[in-house]
Amino acid sequence: MKYFQPVALEHASRLVNHGPTVLVTSADGPRRNAMAAAWSMPVEFTPPRIAVVIDKRTYTRQLVAASGAFGICIPGTSLTDLTYALGSTSGRDTDKFERYGIEARPGPVLGMPLLEVGCAAWLECRLISEPHTEEAYDTCFAEVVAAAADARIFAGGRWSFRDDNADLQTIHHLGGGNFARSGGNLQARPL
Amino acid sequence: MKYFQPVALEHASRLVNHGPTVLVTSADGPRRNAMAAAWSMPVEFTPPRIAVVIDKRTYTRQLVAASGAFGICIPGTSLTDLTYALGSTSGRDTDKFERYGIEARPGPVLGMPLLEVGCAAWLECRLISEPHTEEAYDTCFAEVVAAAADARIFAGGRWSFRDDNADLQTIHHLGGGNFARSGGNLQARPL
Repeated sequence: MKYFQPVALEHASRLVNHGPTVLVTSADGPRRNAMAAAWSMPVEFTPPRIAVVIDKRTYTRQLVAASGAFGICIPGTSLTDLTYALGSTSGRDTDKFERYGIEARPGPVLGMPLLEVGCAAWLECRLISEPHTEEAYDTCFAEVVAAAADARIFAGGRWSFRDDNADLQTIHHLGGGNFARSGGNLQARPL
Repeated sequence: MKYFQPVALEHASRLVNHGPTVLVTSADGPRRNAMAAAWSMPVEFTPPRIAVVIDKRTYTRQLVAASGAFGICIPGTSLTDLTYALGSTSGRDTDKFERYGIEARPGPVLGMPLLEVGCAAWLECRLISEPHTEEAYDTCFAEVVAAAADARIFAGGRWSFRDDNADLQTIHHLGGGNFARSGGNLQARPL
């Protein structure tokens, strides 16, 4: 999409630093899926690494294990309903991209399906195999190998939440389909 | 503080589900500390478990390793400056509680120093020893053994962000002292 611009890898952690709910996208050959995940965080700036909880019973986990890769897409407020739907249904028996009319582009490095329309940013990630934490905590570590953001809301390594980009502002799941929206910027002053 | 009420452990993950920036508090004997952490997430509902990134070079990490415990306190907007200050200074040579005039109460199970004034909630956590992930990713897993929240913003297992509790709404670090505030509630509709 014309507004999406590459994000330098040293700035990739900032895309998820503030705890947005994300979409985890996956593919293995012709199979593909997208699920919602509220539980993710950066774990390292350089190399950029993240952790995300993907339940071992999900179809996403099966595809990620098979391909060793996944995408993280950061939905804006206009995708609130879609995000909740993607987190409430399984892709094992249905292609959610077709079902919900989701447009995806292949990631530049790993070919993961990435959403841009309605999203603020995406990260393409290579799984770092950690059998113990995957088994014990459903926690998957990964290295970010490419990232991009809609320049209307993230540019020069910084988020800018403004009145004119409310549709792209990130959403944060509170539970049961209730989300908070990021916004109401606060600038810390030295104490 | 009179507004704080216990949170049932099965609801503890909701306190951090939406990705707030938190304060990690720690103590070992007479030594104590508080630092800010943007990188944390739940990893399991029951038993309630979380993961938090604590850099191995920090004083907090040293205290957590010694005591096997820490607190997670969730600052509201009125503590934005304090949160940034706690994330920008080390407690190795100074008691931050004294320096910044922070009032803390001992946690009910592990005695961790917990902040209530200006905070929306806290969780008291017992470290689960995971030497590999602590070393490789600075990622510390822990079980939540007690939790409480200010009933004006979290009650009955649910957050309620309203105009009249903006001071307690959670903050989400964007980088460089810029924070977003949770708010602007969105309710997902079925697709």
